[in-house]
Amino acid sequence: MSEAKRRIGVVAPASRMSAEVAERVLTLAAALYPDRTPEISFHPQCFASHGHFAGDDELRARAFLDIANDESTDAVWFARGGYGSCRVAEAILRGLTETSRRKSYLGYSDAGVLLAALYQAGFAAVAHGPVAQDILREGGERAVGRALAWMIDRAPETLEPTVGSAQKSAAFNMTVLSQLLGTPLQPDLDGHVLMLEEVAEAMYRIDRSLFHITSNVGIRRVTGIMLGRCRNITPNEPDFGMNEEEVARYWCRRSGIPWLGRADIGHDVDNKIVPFGATRTAGR
Amino acid sequence: MSEAKRRIGVVAPASRMSAEVAERVLTLAAALYPDRTPEISFHPQCFASHGHFAGDDELRARAFLDIANDESTDAVWFARGGYGSCRVAEAILRGLTETSRRKSYLGYSDAGVLLAALYQAGFAAVAHGPVAQDILREGGERAVGRALAWMIDRAPETLEPTVGSAQKSAAFNMTVLSQLLGTPLQPDLDGHVLMLEEVAEAMYRIDRSLFHITSNVGIRRVTGIMLGRCRNITPNEPDFGMNEEEVARYWCRRSGIPWLGRADIGHDVDNKIVPFGATRTAGR
Repeated sequence: MSEAKRRIGVVAPASRMSAEVAERVLTLAAALYPDRTPEISFHPQCFASHGHFAGDDELRARAFLDIANDESTDAVWFARGGYGSCRVAEAILRGLTETSRRKSYLGYSDAGVLLAALYQAGFAAVAHGPVAQDILREGGERAVGRALAWMIDRAPETLEPTVGSAQKSAAFNMTVLSQLLGTPLQPDLDGHVLMLEEVAEAMYRIDRSLFHITSNVGIRRVTGIMLGRCRNITPNEPDFGMNEEEVARYWCRRSGIPWLGRADIGHDVDNKIVPFGATRTAGR
Repeated sequence: MSEAKRRIGVVAPASRMSAEVAERVLTLAAALYPDRTPEISFHPQCFASHGHFAGDDELRARAFLDIANDESTDAVWFARGGYGSCRVAEAILRGLTETSRRKSYLGYSDAGVLLAALYQAGFAAVAHGPVAQDILREGGERAVGRALAWMIDRAPETLEPTVGSAQKSAAFNMTVLSQLLGTPLQPDLDGHVLMLEEVAEAMYRIDRSLFHITSNVGIRRVTGIMLGRCRNITPNEPDFGMNEEEVARYWCRRSGIPWLGRADIGHDVDNKIVPFGATRTAGR
């Protein structure tokens, strides 16, 4: 563990962050790390507004680059998901400097677009895990505490339990990964354990996303699929007739991709951290 | 125009068809074609039920092949969309015989999965247009009358107005096409005018689908994109800030795909017919 104060920059390449998030996250960080409180800087862009987004495409891309390319920042933390990262990924990739490669990146859901892009570009510390806005969930301090413990100390207990240095991992929201397939942003997941979670989709859409994902020739080179939690599944008319695990097992069987069981990830406060690629933990 | 009676087979590779559809379609067909009423045969599978689907995967695939491979059938008409064609496409492609190539196929929405597969397999008469269940819409006789006029006579007035023999066309529901990208079912649309419509999606999802579609290197070889109607757009929180045409123009501009204006297709009774590829009309 490092005794130096960590500097974390928060940016919102998709939807706007709620104003109360900053205050609550800073309070929590001070309570958890009284002697070495991390400096958490919320880019003003987090609070900007432009239709659906936290500022227009140009502002969001520029804000991300401000933090990613800043020498003094150790970690780039996604304010939240929502929607919009796909609109800025190209501009961000174009603007990243060598400095940006030396820091960690943490987020999930819509942020998966940028995690995929950064991982594909060879960034070493890209991880799927809680965002700042998770503080607003009931018990959200657990999620944010876990995010801080990973960004500050790479604490091993923050990791999804099956993550290990022996195998490569990656984690995505199903819909987000689906929307990258067949584009230049599709990540190469050859030899990875692929963990997938979903939120607020009907079961027929989960089935369709898994058809899409497991039908892709690149995805078929994964070591296997693990299913995270599928939260707030919306009503299916008529009842779909299968649950998410049955659906995931079906598409694994159809595609020949090994089914590796359940993963401890999801749109909730228990969402564990999945570093992309081989895992780097403290002391290794 | 042919004076011979046409034989149309109806099958439901996705969701279950309502029972009243058959009766109403048969009544309409008898009224429209009193002297040469087409023989419209609804496969019993249309009324089967298995969770979300009109029968299990095996039953739906077999029913489609029953009709497609039947010597006496001139046209294969999709009972409806819904969801489920992606589960049976592989089995259907495996089971199709030479006979199946000599007939026409008409449907839209989820049926787009099979239209893509058949078109990709070189079938000559594959078209995007009304399904039998459209009879249940207000004024649905117009939609079904148009479908019959195309299947029976290839009537030129049934076609989307910009469809012409000079250029190739294809039409899809955005979400359905999106879910084929990067899979073996993705159609080669090089040199085609691509028409896209949507129903019951939030504007951020329309934006995301268009990101996905226009980011695909194969899709970038289309002649241009035309936007059909986007019906029953669900609420976007907050307001997206752009309408569907602004969003489509944005992604055309971003991707370099020519924007070719609006197309007369959609989830409604005005949904015109778009034959895939170069158009064959009566007398040509």
